[in-house]
Amino acid sequence: MMEKIILTGDRPTGKLHVGHYVGSLKRRVELQNSGEYDKIFIMIADAQALTDNADNPAKIRDNIMEVALDYLSVGIDPTKSNIFVQSHIAELTELSFYYMNLVTVSRLQRNPTVKAEIKMRNFETSIPVGFYTYPISQAADITAFKATTVPAGEDQMPMVEQTKEIVHKFNSVYGETLVDPKILLPENEACLRLPGIDGKAKMSKSLGNCIYLSEEEAEVRKKVMSMYTDPDHIRIEDPGKLEGNTVFTYLDAFCNDDHFAEYLPEYANLDELKAHYQRGGLGDVKVKKFLNNVLQEELSPIRARRKEYEKDIEGVYEILKKGSEEAQKIAAQTVKEVKSAMKIDYFSDPAFIEEQKKKFN
Amino acid sequence: MMEKIILTGDRPTGKLHVGHYVGSLKRRVELQNSGEYDKIFIMIADAQALTDNADNPAKIRDNIMEVALDYLSVGIDPTKSNIFVQSHIAELTELSFYYMNLVTVSRLQRNPTVKAEIKMRNFETSIPVGFYTYPISQAADITAFKATTVPAGEDQMPMVEQTKEIVHKFNSVYGETLVDPKILLPENEACLRLPGIDGKAKMSKSLGNCIYLSEEEAEVRKKVMSMYTDPDHIRIEDPGKLEGNTVFTYLDAFCNDDHFAEYLPEYANLDELKAHYQRGGLGDVKVKKFLNNVLQEELSPIRARRKEYEKDIEGVYEILKKGSEEAQKIAAQTVKEVKSAMKIDYFSDPAFIEEQKKKFN
Repeated sequence: MMEKIILTGDRPTGKLHVGHYVGSLKRRVELQNSGEYDKIFIMIADAQALTDNADNPAKIRDNIMEVALDYLSVGIDPTKSNIFVQSHIAELTELSFYYMNLVTVSRLQRNPTVKAEIKMRNFETSIPVGFYTYPISQAADITAFKATTVPAGEDQMPMVEQTKEIVHKFNSVYGETLVDPKILLPENEACLRLPGIDGKAKMSKSLGNCIYLSEEEAEVRKKVMSMYTDPDHIRIEDPGKLEGNTVFTYLDAFCNDDHFAEYLPEYANLDELKAHYQRGGLGDVKVKKFLNNVLQEELSPIRARRKEYEKDIEGVYEILKKGSEEAQKIAAQTVKEVKSAMKIDYFSDPAFIEEQKKKFN
Repeated sequence: MMEKIILTGDRPTGKLHVGHYVGSLKRRVELQNSGEYDKIFIMIADAQALTDNADNPAKIRDNIMEVALDYLSVGIDPTKSNIFVQSHIAELTELSFYYMNLVTVSRLQRNPTVKAEIKMRNFETSIPVGFYTYPISQAADITAFKATTVPAGEDQMPMVEQTKEIVHKFNSVYGETLVDPKILLPENEACLRLPGIDGKAKMSKSLGNCIYLSEEEAEVRKKVMSMYTDPDHIRIEDPGKLEGNTVFTYLDAFCNDDHFAEYLPEYANLDELKAHYQRGGLGDVKVKKFLNNVLQEELSPIRARRKEYEKDIEGVYEILKKGSEEAQKIAAQTVKEVKSAMKIDYFSDPAFIEEQKKKFN
């Protein structure tokens, strides 16, 4: 039976925040601990991050260890999941190179994810070629590890679609070699796109609107208490809106009935709390205090684990180094198979010299 | 003083012909034997050939040895020049990958060589991404070997220009690392673009209008005698045109005064022969016989050397293998320098772990 293999990862452009946590990290740990997967590869995608940060590699370098610490803190277990650094695996660039021959320029242009990201980054005509072609590089990442499963949000569907096309094309031209991956979408829609604490759709370091996994308790509380709610909910007795109300969006993503029993026993569940807020008579501060309790419960063990790992940076470095070395070996095996399928492995294929000797005999 | 290093090569899409010979190979041997260059790298560009032959790697595979034999036959000396196979040097794809972040999509679109080749190949919207981006891959080839000198035709100027831009950009962003190359244009204009024997501008295997370096004497004679001349030059006494007259274009490229002394002593030089042809009274057959003598004199030692090398295919294979292994080591050193300049060599840079330990202390 075919092995079940996961490939996933993050661009190390900053510390990871609660949006990453509910959007992917939490699920990743669940998948890791489910025992359903034979191998799990978690890539710190520094090479991909460089495609739109070429003039600032220091930023990427500075966040490799941050992301590794975040991974370990949330419960990624290096004995179960291989954490590796993308740029260490030169084989990924070799696969990209050959896959680029199987994709047309017009196909790349149609990729909606790339289109959206180009718009978001205001690249216009000055898109770096590396950024433009990164769906092909992602196909290299996924196929190098023979991943069957790519946990990702719906916005990443076109990327996985591109990988599947490359796999089909490669296998039809050169013979069955690459593994066809499937996207694994999140179960909880609310977790997909957590807004910033200011209510803005996108969390970003420059907007200062993220709650980081590594943040101290007091800082988290301060951010929760300053969260954007309903600007028309001025007096406690006013009816409040839930739509666009960040506090409730966060509660949707984080809280469960046990949290009510523990911190807010006058409500059985989130529906009751929402109903009270909507009809009026429930103040923002009370809801925010509840959210703070919920978040702190989730974040405090993460914070504690991080502090332990921070005391042993050399150990974390060794985890990354070992993971990268192991990942490199696996990717090298795939490159070997790819080049053998393409019959361009002249110096390791004994048939090559034999057929040439025959030809010129 | 800086070493003088040459990087050049050919796509192995077929046997090499007299157009390659006068256009580049002859000069290449002269440069090799001039003693002016410290290192010479001659690349069998199979990976580049795959960018527009992805569905036919067998064609490329089948021509690796042909091109190697052609090189050795014309006088490329493996003790002076390193002949290597591009796909063996994975480091070239790694350099390409990072250089792609330094070039914009709109810059690639403006490349006139790529534009012309896309038109020539009738790609229209279905250009493979690998083909579209090959100027970046060429920059990797050139810089990997720290080439100072790229012997090439004027049509390749935009390609070398693209490399120079990448070198400047890389060095300005990451610090002085890459060597800025110069194109070395041919001295003899007539040699630049030898037409096919049918007078068509492009020699191509499918048109059957090439004289190959490996062709037998009788076959060369037959092709010369069938060459396109002046269709209005019907009787010997008619005046003949030189323009578009393939026989004279070939004489421009191949013959010298010694050839007249040897094979056609009634003329001192090509000018006299041309003048007689233009005023009438000189038949095509006589001119073609002369061209045949000239060509056979040039080609017969090449043919003889080829037959020797064909008897020792294993020896040729070893030359390629050894050349590729040596080239790989040199390219690996460049990649090391490139990644060190970019500061993405986390696991070999002792400063990385030190700065991380300090940060989290």
